[in-house]
Amino acid sequence: MEQNTSTRPRLEACLTPALIPLYDVKDYIVVVIDIFRATTSICYGIENGAEAIIPVSQVEECSAYVEKGFDYLLAAERNGEVVPGFDFGNSPFSYTTEKVSGKTVVLTTTNGTHALHLSRAAKKIVIGAFINLTSICNWLKQQNENILLVCSGWKNNFNLEDTLFAGAVVEQLKDAGFIVDDPAIAANDLYQIAKDDLNQYLKKTSHSERLKKLGIEADIEFCLKVDLTTAIPVLEGERLVKLS
Amino acid sequence: MEQNTSTRPRLEACLTPALIPLYDVKDYIVVVIDIFRATTSICYGIENGAEAIIPVSQVEECSAYVEKGFDYLLAAERNGEVVPGFDFGNSPFSYTTEKVSGKTVVLTTTNGTHALHLSRAAKKIVIGAFINLTSICNWLKQQNENILLVCSGWKNNFNLEDTLFAGAVVEQLKDAGFIVDDPAIAANDLYQIAKDDLNQYLKKTSHSERLKKLGIEADIEFCLKVDLTTAIPVLEGERLVKLS
Repeated sequence: MEQNTSTRPRLEACLTPALIPLYDVKDYIVVVIDIFRATTSICYGIENGAEAIIPVSQVEECSAYVEKGFDYLLAAERNGEVVPGFDFGNSPFSYTTEKVSGKTVVLTTTNGTHALHLSRAAKKIVIGAFINLTSICNWLKQQNENILLVCSGWKNNFNLEDTLFAGAVVEQLKDAGFIVDDPAIAANDLYQIAKDDLNQYLKKTSHSERLKKLGIEADIEFCLKVDLTTAIPVLEGERLVKLS
Repeated sequence: MEQNTSTRPRLEACLTPALIPLYDVKDYIVVVIDIFRATTSICYGIENGAEAIIPVSQVEECSAYVEKGFDYLLAAERNGEVVPGFDFGNSPFSYTTEKVSGKTVVLTTTNGTHALHLSRAAKKIVIGAFINLTSICNWLKQQNENILLVCSGWKNNFNLEDTLFAGAVVEQLKDAGFIVDDPAIAANDLYQIAKDDLNQYLKKTSHSERLKKLGIEADIEFCLKVDLTTAIPVLEGERLVKLS
């Protein structure tokens, strides 16, 4: 007999930050997704021993931390180049153990920060990327809470890579008794089409063209690798730290 | 050699009315989509000789037309029942020649009216449904304009049936030289999965469950029939009339 739906937790996908206000986020654990490249870099940095990563939306906010005298690493790009005076850009390859272990990094990211900000009333906010996929899914399965997969998207609109990740999470959780909504079903179906070669699938998108022009194809390939890491970044105040 | 992208018109999908503000709709022909059941009923009514159909969002607005002395047919449902004193509900089966020919119908619809209202600055607004699919696609191909496929969705969020229709339009237009955005690509891929049996595909959605409880399965089946009609409803002022 089917379980009473009212007692089952929900697994839902919010396809762009513009739709976050439609959800009562306080009733959910939110997974923030910004595959190219913010949440991938954050997962990699936390895995590699960064003490904390602070996401901000403006380069100026980033600089403000240094002006206040904090010994933080600063990461910011404009048009694919590291901003002069900053330690590195947004490539996940910057977030190696050698560079970030024991450090706090302030990371400039527009779409990801926007999604985090709008989700701040959530029960808990964790960070997902293909590189920590199975780890975060295993943790989510144990929580017995409603889950909202928040795609950071592109300028408040839908993008494919974040939706595919949401679909990959649904793939691992869909037999765990959740009530799954239409956007999550759609994300999962798109993932079914794309999963055998995510990179190839994404080549047909306009966004992919834009990224290619930035010369970050190696980053893209890295951002689509699955299960390289196990650390789950969680938001505490304004800082993303390792979930213990 | 590939055509210069800047001169090619765009084919884009807006997955929910909440995302309409992200588009400069004055640069687009907008196709409003509300498959279950508003835009299907509108296409069927216009095909069957309705002089005009006026979509409103509230039952009270609907009644106001009669209070003003207009000899209009009124269509409104609450919880799947025709509102007392109204001529019929939202079932496409109400929009037969016998009932609507030569008449103006005022139709209560929340999601569809919302999408129309937010799109009102568009170059032109036309109404799409599976029943007029090929007709509207053929017309769109001839316009040489940017096209925005606006899914009315469900309470401002994504739904599958409207997205599948957007994907069906993309299927017919994708080789016609448009620049296609990520949401339109996603809609088309979902349509590829679903097209052999749209009704079966939609059975997995929660929305479908809700509709089944309303006892409107025959309506649903009708709303998924392809190319029953050729009329294209177009918005003139507040009235949807037949595009000539």
